[in-house]
Amino acid sequence: MRIGVLTAGGDCPGLNAVIRSVVHRAVVDRNDEVIGFEDGFKGLLDGRHRPLDINSVSGILARGGTILGSARLERGRLQEACRNSEELLERLGLDALIPIGGEGTLTAARMLADAGLPVVGVPKTIDNDISATDRTFGFDTAVTVATEAIDRLKTTAESHQRVMVVEVMGRHAGWIALEAGMASGAHGICVPERPFQIDDLCKMVQERFARGKKFAVICVAEGARPAEGSMPYEKGQIDQYGHERFAGIGNRLAIELEHRLGKEARPVILGHVQRGGTPTAYDRVLATRFGWHAVEAAHRGDFGRMTALRGNEITMVPLADAVAELKTVPQERMDETEAVF
Amino acid sequence: MRIGVLTAGGDCPGLNAVIRSVVHRAVVDRNDEVIGFEDGFKGLLDGRHRPLDINSVSGILARGGTILGSARLERGRLQEACRNSEELLERLGLDALIPIGGEGTLTAARMLADAGLPVVGVPKTIDNDISATDRTFGFDTAVTVATEAIDRLKTTAESHQRVMVVEVMGRHAGWIALEAGMASGAHGICVPERPFQIDDLCKMVQERFARGKKFAVICVAEGARPAEGSMPYEKGQIDQYGHERFAGIGNRLAIELEHRLGKEARPVILGHVQRGGTPTAYDRVLATRFGWHAVEAAHRGDFGRMTALRGNEITMVPLADAVAELKTVPQERMDETEAVF
Amino acid sequence: MRIGVLTAGGDCPGLNAVIRSVVHRAVVDRNDEVIGFEDGFKGLLDGRHRPLDINSVSGILARGGTILGSARLERGRLQEACRNSEELLERLGLDALIPIGGEGTLTAARMLADAGLPVVGVPKTIDNDISATDRTFGFDTAVTVATEAIDRLKTTAESHQRVMVVEVMGRHAGWIALEAGMASGAHGICVPERPFQIDDLCKMVQERFARGKKFAVICVAEGARPAEGSMPYEKGQIDQYGHERFAGIGNRLAIELEHRLGKEARPVILGHVQRGGTPTAYDRVLATRFGWHAVEAAHRGDFGRMTALRGNEITMVPLADAVAELKTVPQERMDETEAVF
Amino acid sequence: MRIGVLTAGGDCPGLNAVIRSVVHRAVVDRNDEVIGFEDGFKGLLDGRHRPLDINSVSGILARGGTILGSARLERGRLQEACRNSEELLERLGLDALIPIGGEGTLTAARMLADAGLPVVGVPKTIDNDISATDRTFGFDTAVTVATEAIDRLKTTAESHQRVMVVEVMGRHAGWIALEAGMASGAHGICVPERPFQIDDLCKMVQERFARGKKFAVICVAEGARPAEGSMPYEKGQIDQYGHERFAGIGNRLAIELEHRLGKEARPVILGHVQRGGTPTAYDRVLATRFGWHAVEAAHRGDFGRMTALRGNEITMVPLADAVAELKTVPQERMDETEAVF
Repeated sequence: MRIGVLTAGGDCPGLNAVIRSVVHRAVVDRNDEVIGFEDGFKGLLDGRHRPLDINSVSGILARGGTILGSARLERGRLQEACRNSEELLERLGLDALIPIGGEGTLTAARMLADAGLPVVGVPKTIDNDISATDRTFGFDTAVTVATEAIDRLKTTAESHQRVMVVEVMGRHAGWIALEAGMASGAHGICVPERPFQIDDLCKMVQERFARGKKFAVICVAEGARPAEGSMPYEKGQIDQYGHERFAGIGNRLAIELEHRLGKEARPVILGHVQRGGTPTAYDRVLATRFGWHAVEAAHRGDFGRMTALRGNEITMVPLADAVAELKTVPQERMDETEAVF
Repeated sequence: MRIGVLTAGGDCPGLNAVIRSVVHRAVVDRNDEVIGFEDGFKGLLDGRHRPLDINSVSGILARGGTILGSARLERGRLQEACRNSEELLERLGLDALIPIGGEGTLTAARMLADAGLPVVGVPKTIDNDISATDRTFGFDTAVTVATEAIDRLKTTAESHQRVMVVEVMGRHAGWIALEAGMASGAHGICVPERPFQIDDLCKMVQERFARGKKFAVICVAEGARPAEGSMPYEKGQIDQYGHERFAGIGNRLAIELEHRLGKEARPVILGHVQRGGTPTAYDRVLATRFGWHAVEAAHRGDFGRMTALRGNEITMVPLADAVAELKTVPQERMDETEAVF
Repeated sequence: MRIGVLTAGGDCPGLNAVIRSVVHRAVVDRNDEVIGFEDGFKGLLDGRHRPLDINSVSGILARGGTILGSARLERGRLQEACRNSEELLERLGLDALIPIGGEGTLTAARMLADAGLPVVGVPKTIDNDISATDRTFGFDTAVTVATEAIDRLKTTAESHQRVMVVEVMGRHAGWIALEAGMASGAHGICVPERPFQIDDLCKMVQERFARGKKFAVICVAEGARPAEGSMPYEKGQIDQYGHERFAGIGNRLAIELEHRLGKEARPVILGHVQRGGTPTAYDRVLATRFGWHAVEAAHRGDFGRMTALRGNEITMVPLADAVAELKTVPQERMDETEAVF
Repeated sequence: MRIGVLTAGGDCPGLNAVIRSVVHRAVVDRNDEVIGFEDGFKGLLDGRHRPLDINSVSGILARGGTILGSARLERGRLQEACRNSEELLERLGLDALIPIGGEGTLTAARMLADAGLPVVGVPKTIDNDISATDRTFGFDTAVTVATEAIDRLKTTAESHQRVMVVEVMGRHAGWIALEAGMASGAHGICVPERPFQIDDLCKMVQERFARGKKFAVICVAEGARPAEGSMPYEKGQIDQYGHERFAGIGNRLAIELEHRLGKEARPVILGHVQRGGTPTAYDRVLATRFGWHAVEAAHRGDFGRMTALRGNEITMVPLADAVAELKTVPQERMDETEAVF
């Protein structure tokens, strides 16, 4: 078999582990040929690819990033490619294509599959918001990095009687905020799924100070929003080139809390640290399993589907399911912690 | 409600997180009274306990060990207690008892439940070998510690053209060896579930050296055993006090490999480092959820059962199921990696 | 002897290790009495203190923050106290006072010493900018945290062909930026000691992209400034309450680079994560040694001085020397790395 | 200039950072040619070398091990090479040779220098026992790894009322045991410099248990020995091939303590984990500085010397000084901690 593999979308710890696993299973065990496309779908359409053998994946298991690169593609080009899918397939000479990526990538993968390409998807997102799989690799690493940061911030907050507001990733789903908040014992957690009441946060801080716990940590997803009327919504700051910039919810919430409480509040924006670097052991195992099962699916001719974790098993689910609905944090999960939401 | 909590068996990162979560849910949210028994079932029978309020669990979420202590109990004393369970219950005045522990503890918990005590179990084992739950807390931490160690050892092995044999925990099940081995890219993995052929390991090392990869790492569960006739089984070393000591499979395998291959082989026995210290974010979240759901189960009167992870949900399963059968590594999981087993 | 100890100024990993070491040496070895003042000099003047015995420092060696708390004091109150130093000393009944703190604290310590109080200082600053000592504890932790973050960011930068601008602490001295930049292989390092030329940074990035290394990481001290005319200096953003806010050099530099280079540039502001949490082994050892030697100095009557590291030895230097001059990064140290300054 | 570089002796985190720094300074800044000899002095004599340019050292700063490999050389071959040093020099065409290594390597370096080769040494040892330099790279990493392990073990010891005996590296000098012991708050520290009294250790444990601290951690250097008559010295165990094996002081001490105290005592042998893997930020900086200054020394013609850290400066010291005397732990350093020695 001739198998193509590509990585698309934002960085995510574990991408290299998938690539390595695909090569190990396909080339070593099954005598396949594997080629890697550079810079995602761009390399696919431009025909930029290189052979991947066992040496080209040596030492990458624990490495962040992706050896294949990743770049954005204008949607138009992909649609055009779908219209000429037969020509594309012939040109590439592929028996299977394994795109590794998030929601956008899986949508594109589905388009290509619908156009007749033999696609096996592998889902990735640090946000953990793909509904067809219990977990995605990259998420555990993001939660781990965020938790270690909050562990550090707590002692500072306590010594200086401060409120620390930690902004973590999660534009549409609050999984990272929820789990990092639970793991680090944050006293407030704000998620996109539920607009927060600034009054509730203030009350929580005041009650803590009243009973002698003179600090608080609030973990905020970047996509969290105040309930209407709860907080004067600052429209965002304009940089000298006319773009709205860096005026995230973490900064705004810290300003607001300091003003209302009359206590020091400091924002910390964790940013890209969460999505780079070496994956946790959990993510390396999950990524390796996904890669292995993607090759097996290709050999079974099980196309138009993607790998998914269900319990302890890796199963295949339709690509359509993957992108049908965002997996968001349900109310029951928020109830499981004493933190204020 | 008056709820008693105790920890029994070996150390396991996340025990304190469960205790803290029980107290947060019961005392803060539900206005219960919580008491903690010292040193496991011993404290239960001896009546050694202390009240646990929100201050007594402050700052323990990320701390290894157990603030309640743990100790062994002679089985006879427990059986006697079961015979007088009504007297015991009356003396303690408990509405619910939450024992947190491994196989032995859950067996004891079941005995107490059968004798009529209102027991809600919480499973813990770093070995991950309890079949009624997808995962147990402590396991992720053990795998993480082992993986970080093997990551370090690989560079040494490579620079010095050596075989490193890393012995990890797992007496009856090879989950830690499997996942740490996969996560770190070990070239050989030995688990209790499948006796290893020393010839296969030797062949793997020789092939690696032949193609220029002049090192190898083998991850061995402490309970792994060579296939009959595969390796001269050393009977164990006797210390000056007459006890068999420290002659683990890791040491023996390294000696054997060095002898057969004529290459340097070094053993590293990770030991107790795997089961102590701060839990990973994953384990803190799982432990916190288990504690929360145990309190909820107590309030529902859902006794004789224990908390379990199934997919992303926490459910309750009969204590009988927990201890019915050891969850071992199936052949399919071994197939998912290129490592030699 | 009756010894008082206090911590003042910003958080710094290792404070608790000093306190613990003072208690171990004084109480256990020398049979002294030790009292801890709460919230820095405030507690000293208000007479808020508590006895510190071996149990009160149990388990704090590896803990961030300070068990004694820290708070700001209006300078006027301290000056008044100095005028009535005899009365203060009598009231406190102290044979020695060990204040642990940075430049401001050591200046206050010197004032108290000049007024006749038996003061032994212990220097602390994560910035490493006290000239009388080779190193201060807290610095190694800050560099370690920053280095781990940049390690993570590099893979993201590489996969996405980006410029990452990482802002680290260091208002007046660039030690953290220098050492974290060297340790992580940053391609540009900006320090307060030398205004940077934005053109030099742009040229470096372009040369890297030209030779196929399509990413760059720039490590910027918060106190770094562009050379005059090098970059349009944005005056700072005003929040809705009228305060200038969060418009640090890292954010501004990323905007500027993206605009000039036409490539994605992203800022990451590490912030308080650098100064909280568990200290590195290096910092724990240095802090422990400082505490031990401070007690010895007190017993020798060696007042008006502070502990200092010189080579491998701990020596005592006049408090006057400590605050005479800021230790800044000399040109020779910048020369030792290939990074653009 | 044409500069040769090689790494010899045991693994040590930071070797790659030195190589990278040599190449950066020599090739990029000074337009030199750099060649790397494979497997230490073996490659030098066999003429196995490869050119090192900026691409060959890309990404190795944070990587453990050595990209050049390391192997042992029979002393006879080196002596012969020294007798024919002119021929060797001519054959290699080197203007400078930078060997990076420990005591053995520096002794060899001195022989070559005495024979007329233009040698600039770079010292490395995780043991920190080279007297001519304040510190060596690799040491901080070893201490950090050991400290993290003991941090983990302490919670286990405490929960289970155990004595943990942790054996760390250090055959002739106890620096790792001293600093890891201090950093982790070990209650006993055994170093080669001072034979330990088993009775003192037992007394310390008993006193701890008596005052309610029912656990203890003892950090033992592999080269530590009991005082004569203090402990029945077990002669070592013999493996099935007739070699004495794995009967280190850690194992023996744990057995002895358990026997005498009647309490559980467990050994943990950290082993090679201490000397592999990614270097700490401290070690990366020190290694980078050493590499840079070695190139500068070569350009100044400053041969027969090696780089050394003195305070905050890198200086050059005669190779003769480096190997004249082992730097051992002085009594004053043992006095600075409350631990029993």
